[in-house]
Amino acid sequence: MSKMHLEKNRLRNPLVHCITNYVTVNDVANMLIACGGAPIMADEAAEVEEMTTICDALVLNIGTLNERTVESMLKAGKKASELGHPVVLDPVGAGATRLRTETALRLISEIPMAVIRGNISEIMTLYHGTGSTKGVDASIGDAVTEDNLDEKISLARGLSINTGAVVAITGAIDIIADGRSAYVVRNGHPMMSKVSGTGCMLTAVIASFVSASPDDKAAACASAISAMGLSGEIAHERLMKSGGGPSTYRSYIIDAMGTLASDVLEGGTRIEAR
Amino acid sequence: MSKMHLEKNRLRNPLVHCITNYVTVNDVANMLIACGGAPIMADEAAEVEEMTTICDALVLNIGTLNERTVESMLKAGKKASELGHPVVLDPVGAGATRLRTETALRLISEIPMAVIRGNISEIMTLYHGTGSTKGVDASIGDAVTEDNLDEKISLARGLSINTGAVVAITGAIDIIADGRSAYVVRNGHPMMSKVSGTGCMLTAVIASFVSASPDDKAAACASAISAMGLSGEIAHERLMKSGGGPSTYRSYIIDAMGTLASDVLEGGTRIEAR
Amino acid sequence: MSKMHLEKNRLRNPLVHCITNYVTVNDVANMLIACGGAPIMADEAAEVEEMTTICDALVLNIGTLNERTVESMLKAGKKASELGHPVVLDPVGAGATRLRTETALRLISEIPMAVIRGNISEIMTLYHGTGSTKGVDASIGDAVTEDNLDEKISLARGLSINTGAVVAITGAIDIIADGRSAYVVRNGHPMMSKVSGTGCMLTAVIASFVSASPDDKAAACASAISAMGLSGEIAHERLMKSGGGPSTYRSYIIDAMGTLASDVLEGGTRIEAR
Repeated sequence: MSKMHLEKNRLRNPLVHCITNYVTVNDVANMLIACGGAPIMADEAAEVEEMTTICDALVLNIGTLNERTVESMLKAGKKASELGHPVVLDPVGAGATRLRTETALRLISEIPMAVIRGNISEIMTLYHGTGSTKGVDASIGDAVTEDNLDEKISLARGLSINTGAVVAITGAIDIIADGRSAYVVRNGHPMMSKVSGTGCMLTAVIASFVSASPDDKAAACASAISAMGLSGEIAHERLMKSGGGPSTYRSYIIDAMGTLASDVLEGGTRIEAR
Repeated sequence: MSKMHLEKNRLRNPLVHCITNYVTVNDVANMLIACGGAPIMADEAAEVEEMTTICDALVLNIGTLNERTVESMLKAGKKASELGHPVVLDPVGAGATRLRTETALRLISEIPMAVIRGNISEIMTLYHGTGSTKGVDASIGDAVTEDNLDEKISLARGLSINTGAVVAITGAIDIIADGRSAYVVRNGHPMMSKVSGTGCMLTAVIASFVSASPDDKAAACASAISAMGLSGEIAHERLMKSGGGPSTYRSYIIDAMGTLASDVLEGGTRIEAR
Repeated sequence: MSKMHLEKNRLRNPLVHCITNYVTVNDVANMLIACGGAPIMADEAAEVEEMTTICDALVLNIGTLNERTVESMLKAGKKASELGHPVVLDPVGAGATRLRTETALRLISEIPMAVIRGNISEIMTLYHGTGSTKGVDASIGDAVTEDNLDEKISLARGLSINTGAVVAITGAIDIIADGRSAYVVRNGHPMMSKVSGTGCMLTAVIASFVSASPDDKAAACASAISAMGLSGEIAHERLMKSGGGPSTYRSYIIDAMGTLASDVLEGGTRIEAR
């Protein structure tokens, strides 16, 4: 399944319009190219509808939102969904400030999202309509573990039912759910948390995969998450051989995605259907 | 010729004021240092005239333009040209949205540009006053090939005559033309298209080179393009030895420019005067 | 001393709110993680007070200031200082434009800063209330040398007495002073000046260290500067072995900080109390 999704993504080469934060935007652009998509960043209200029209998917990432870009997100999101393009939300820091929580809630109420991807704290915030995220990282007490998997899958499914979106909770263990199906992904490496922006990069990869395989969005989303996690694993093996630290590791993750053979993905993917 | 231009650039160490997109800005800054220039980014209308006054050249890159920064571009551009500083335009995405096309056309009508550098789709858009660029990448059908070189040189020359700027069309084969002379550059490596921002970086390198060698802007521009392409070639050779993917390659390109000996450039340059 | 400060920083893992320039923001985020802190970037006036409340320290970096973000800096700075969080100012380009000089002076007059870190030109500008910085790099004539150390320490002390902040002048030789104590740090490598953003990264590391060791801010600041400089030294040794240029070196600096053992820091630190 992952193999097919990666191959379709590389074949279709989706152009992904990103309204995203300026912290990790360069890595998002390079990761999109690496996975088989193509990036375009444009956040001015006067052009986002026209820009998103020529694209295949849209990422809305609120990591460094401001009044101007929130307006652009709303405009672009409505246009993209009108055109049937998948819209993927990354609610960075929802729960940390009222502005972020309210903006994320407003975006999901006004725009039919294809996928919402966040950490557990962000997704809980969206589900409950309120929350307390510590900055942009998930609160430790909420982490998804083997013991509470079913409960967290229910949470994802609940938000999916409320919004119509595939919901992905990512962390050490990743959960993907919609109203019908659920997947658990166990790829990845703990050191990925030492690299700023792996979440943002993943969101863009998801948008690309879902655009290339629109018939089963939850499965395509799981494949994207697995491909990203496996890239982190492959990069870590390479790092152990070459030596180095977090910045070399960051490069290696993008390298791994850029050179990931679909057969290697198929062999290394750890997706469990639930 | 390239040797002299690179040496002059390193000797004069031009301070290049960039109003550029936030996607690739860090690579632009590091590439400018690597080639022998120095970067300063400033995009607030209240300071751009003063800032550009203490600089040697100005880059206007519309990759993530917005209303605020377009105003700053106009102010900075007028001031810089008044002072005789070369102004270099990178019309990222011209043809993709009306805002981008109109902004690029307005910038070239209100500011005497020293150089306009874009891909073939962007340059065609500026020449015809309208166009259809797919995102920020050139449309494949328009690509410069050995077969249509003369026609594309005429295009570049046409835009040069209309604007007074040296016009550079970059891609697999690069064309540089003004009203008198034309150059074709055949350096570079196809993998450079897998790295976000090589075009933006190149635009800044051109600004630096043209500032350091103002007496023959077209030739200095050709040398800058050749130096960038050769850096991509050297980086690719290194990548084939070390292994790695697109992110390592990105670093290697900047490394190659940072360590490019002028004799190596002279030996590897592939500039043809037409 | 450095050992203890590094260990405390890693133990306490301060969340550092950064309102910083978009040129080097990604490196700032990754360097913060590497040193033991955690980054959050947020610059919208409507949320900065709430965001800074859940953080442990605040960085104000005026590298790409604009009207909107200056307002956010003032709001965040006042809130953070009310809460007793250390606020660290990086007056990038003060002296280069009136806007930058006036903004930096306004920030230090309205917000009690814990630390002000700049190059010699920027610090002279703040001390004298006016200046002429060439872009974002220090003017060569003003450089701190062994011969003028006492004079430059007096300058730092003077600005410290005027503002209540620890003042750090960084360059080939680094000076840290407050009203009581002064330190000279001789770590670092000249090639660090070939990497865009080492100053911005350092400012964020200082904020993290000072937040983790609030009882002696000047000493914690000296340790942070020494840790950054030593990372530059270690990275350079590695670069001499592996080969490469400025971009590889940039990665290696972040890698070195991310893997810096506290005993190695203690052994390599070159801090002189004056």
